[in-house]
Amino acid sequence: MNDTILSESVSKFNTHIARICDLNHSAALLEWDQETYMPSGAAASRASQISTLRQMSHELLTSDTTASLVEKLESDGLKPGSIEADHVLIVRKDFERATKIPGNLVAQLAETAALSRGAWMKARTQNEFELFAPHLEKIIDLCRQKAEALTYKTEIYDPLLDEFEPGTSTAKVRLIFEELREKLVPIVQQIATEPAPEDDFLHTFFPRDAQWKFGLDVAKDFGYDMNTGRQDYSAHPFSTTFSISDVRITTRIDEHFFNPGFFGTLHESGHGMYEQGVSHELERTLLADGTSLGMHESQSRMWENLIGRSREFWSHYYPRAQAAFPGALSGVSEQDFYRAVNKVAPSLIRVEADELTYNLHIMVRFELEIELLEDRIKVAELPSAWNDRMESYLGVRPKSDSDGVLQDIHWSLGAFGYFPTYALGNLISSQLYDQVSVAIPDLPDQIAEGSFSELLAWLRKHIHVFGRRKSAAQILRETTNSELSIESWIHYIEKKYETLYGH
Amino acid sequence: MNDTILSESVSKFNTHIARICDLNHSAALLEWDQETYMPSGAAASRASQISTLRQMSHELLTSDTTASLVEKLESDGLKPGSIEADHVLIVRKDFERATKIPGNLVAQLAETAALSRGAWMKARTQNEFELFAPHLEKIIDLCRQKAEALTYKTEIYDPLLDEFEPGTSTAKVRLIFEELREKLVPIVQQIATEPAPEDDFLHTFFPRDAQWKFGLDVAKDFGYDMNTGRQDYSAHPFSTTFSISDVRITTRIDEHFFNPGFFGTLHESGHGMYEQGVSHELERTLLADGTSLGMHESQSRMWENLIGRSREFWSHYYPRAQAAFPGALSGVSEQDFYRAVNKVAPSLIRVEADELTYNLHIMVRFELEIELLEDRIKVAELPSAWNDRMESYLGVRPKSDSDGVLQDIHWSLGAFGYFPTYALGNLISSQLYDQVSVAIPDLPDQIAEGSFSELLAWLRKHIHVFGRRKSAAQILRETTNSELSIESWIHYIEKKYETLYGH
Repeated sequence: MNDTILSESVSKFNTHIARICDLNHSAALLEWDQETYMPSGAAASRASQISTLRQMSHELLTSDTTASLVEKLESDGLKPGSIEADHVLIVRKDFERATKIPGNLVAQLAETAALSRGAWMKARTQNEFELFAPHLEKIIDLCRQKAEALTYKTEIYDPLLDEFEPGTSTAKVRLIFEELREKLVPIVQQIATEPAPEDDFLHTFFPRDAQWKFGLDVAKDFGYDMNTGRQDYSAHPFSTTFSISDVRITTRIDEHFFNPGFFGTLHESGHGMYEQGVSHELERTLLADGTSLGMHESQSRMWENLIGRSREFWSHYYPRAQAAFPGALSGVSEQDFYRAVNKVAPSLIRVEADELTYNLHIMVRFELEIELLEDRIKVAELPSAWNDRMESYLGVRPKSDSDGVLQDIHWSLGAFGYFPTYALGNLISSQLYDQVSVAIPDLPDQIAEGSFSELLAWLRKHIHVFGRRKSAAQILRETTNSELSIESWIHYIEKKYETLYGH
Repeated sequence: MNDTILSESVSKFNTHIARICDLNHSAALLEWDQETYMPSGAAASRASQISTLRQMSHELLTSDTTASLVEKLESDGLKPGSIEADHVLIVRKDFERATKIPGNLVAQLAETAALSRGAWMKARTQNEFELFAPHLEKIIDLCRQKAEALTYKTEIYDPLLDEFEPGTSTAKVRLIFEELREKLVPIVQQIATEPAPEDDFLHTFFPRDAQWKFGLDVAKDFGYDMNTGRQDYSAHPFSTTFSISDVRITTRIDEHFFNPGFFGTLHESGHGMYEQGVSHELERTLLADGTSLGMHESQSRMWENLIGRSREFWSHYYPRAQAAFPGALSGVSEQDFYRAVNKVAPSLIRVEADELTYNLHIMVRFELEIELLEDRIKVAELPSAWNDRMESYLGVRPKSDSDGVLQDIHWSLGAFGYFPTYALGNLISSQLYDQVSVAIPDLPDQIAEGSFSELLAWLRKHIHVFGRRKSAAQILRETTNSELSIESWIHYIEKKYETLYGH
């Protein structure tokens, strides 16, 4: 085919998709503003605006224009493996997925989610599951319809999971989680018999501004670029992307607890660095995104836990922490601090859980989601099913639904299939880290010197730069020569917590 | 016509226009973020996003869908004077205007403005007019093309002026400005012979946080609603609207000069209260906006000058100012402070000009804009023409183009026709204020008590609530029973400055 005509087709295609990207990123900015600076009175008008932008993006993506541009380029012989060819593949994939879901189902889901979110907030505040229950029933019904529309071979959960973790399957995740639980529960139980580290000093007083500065300074040391990023406050920390040159994070700070603000900033900066590291050649294409939520979470968890909760890290940063928080830490030894930020204790709230028990929280949700979708349990039975499962996996039983089944926003938004990616991220982070440790033999020394540039460069080169051009499985294969598995992570926690709890 | 079918047509029309509003407001949020929080690296991607949203809004407005919906409702006999009928009128007007300008001219203007803005910033920083000159030539040429496309009867400036001040004409403005100059220049000259009030204390130290709080507290007392508004920092203060329930202002603070931050906040809060006061029935219609820039400026100037620089105002707020800024004001009397914030002195920079000489700055720009468009002066002659006119009207001559012809951003953006609205706003503010003073006889006492609710209620009822449903001229006629004129404002300044300068 004539190169000029081909490049004209590519250019038309790029211009068309760039509009979709601009609409999506604009909607993301409206959402970011909603959580950070928007005056409270603007809630209703903002909801309409976000809905308009999302709808227009969806209309463009599912339009005949997209179909014909994609078909043209598919038949035009783009060079396989080129950015253009990869872009067409991803647009085809997103197009297929988006066109399978009928427009009125999209609208119903959006509307139900908006109402449901409000009902969930009220239900959680008032600890009344009944306020949320009818909304959750509708959400589950709509998610079932969505799964049917998307079609599946074996399990109804598959197409929902695929939205967040493309390329995996419910069966695979179930198997991984079963293996993981078998190994993890005895470890957690063993730790429960050991004396818990003293961590009262983490709950004294850590001034807001000092926390803000200390956390952000570390994120900058990691390599989170403030020229293309920034941090703001929000009720629930998140990271969000408006372009490869504008990737923001948020944090919340509790002046009476060191962990949420500090480790939250590290976590979000990990997400942020992933998106900042995508190749600028992919700007305004649908390739410019993390390849899966599991891969995304592997990055946030690596910086938060594998680095940020490591002994080497604190050997460098603990003197700084003491200088930043003299009131709270002046009499605390580095070793005691290190033990405290790694304290393991089964608890009720996922977002406050330690590195070990966190995965058990995820399993509870994964299993219940499937049972709800398959109608094996009813919404009315959900609170007690939740509590039973928490007791069985973690040995703790919520006293209220607010601390139990009502704690997370995800279901109210219809995000069934999302939770497992958190646990997959933990596993992937460790598999990748093993590989980095081979590639950079003196990495522990570098961390102990507060130097992270080689590590970040490795992650950039092997993961970030590709955006969605490589799948999570492909990245794992190419970097670690293996599939997703639990061994690396189990090895990591066994080694770490054996030393920590010194038995 | 059947009511159900009519209401279906209205509903289709409203849904269509609501999308345009949502796109415009989303673009405004992207622009606000650009000036407040956006990381510097994001400039290029943000420009693309704003351009996409503006283009899509323009495409929707000029689409066949708009044409057919408007035609249908025009022939359907909507009740004259109803919101629906008024909305159709305004959409017809915006549609006609937007369709007259060819798409490629819109694109050329946007592209040239983007490049030109950058060149202007560089030229101003380096004080090199030549860097900006070729861009300005292109801008002027494109503005001429725009005016020709829009068509006009007598003067090429008319259709450009009409964009910002619908319903007026170049001839009218010229006449008003001539009258104004004739009266104003002698007053300014007279004042120049009087001893200037001492105002060194305004240039001492006013801590940032105290300024922020003091200014915003007054804006809240005025009635600027923080539940549907907020204030942020930006390099150049502005107000902006994302919905009737989300109207924001920005400020900049100079710790060594009291005026810019404080009077800036009052000024922007005046703009903000106008937009917050639009009837909520007009949400997501093209009626939800100020009716003209002159009317808008009348609101900002009223709160900034007629209220905020009045004796009554400071009789209430001066003790608070002293408490807020003890270091700067403890030894300064209320009378000295009042005189200082009303100091008149011809100066070079428009945005720093006093209430009196401000209008002369506008006249310089108005005349030069017309001469440039009519090719009576060349761009190369502009700097000296500027300096000559400044000397003739204000008695001061810029020593550099940065302090002269390069000081304002407007021309770089192609906003020819914008400047006169600032001066018209001053005149309108005074005409309206005379009327309010009749309607609320004890208004001075209320101001002296820090009570502004009756004043704001009057402005809401007679101006704000209508949005674009009434023209500026109509509002003036209905409230003051007169046309735009200079008498009221001249009377106001004569009275005020006679007392102030005590001759």
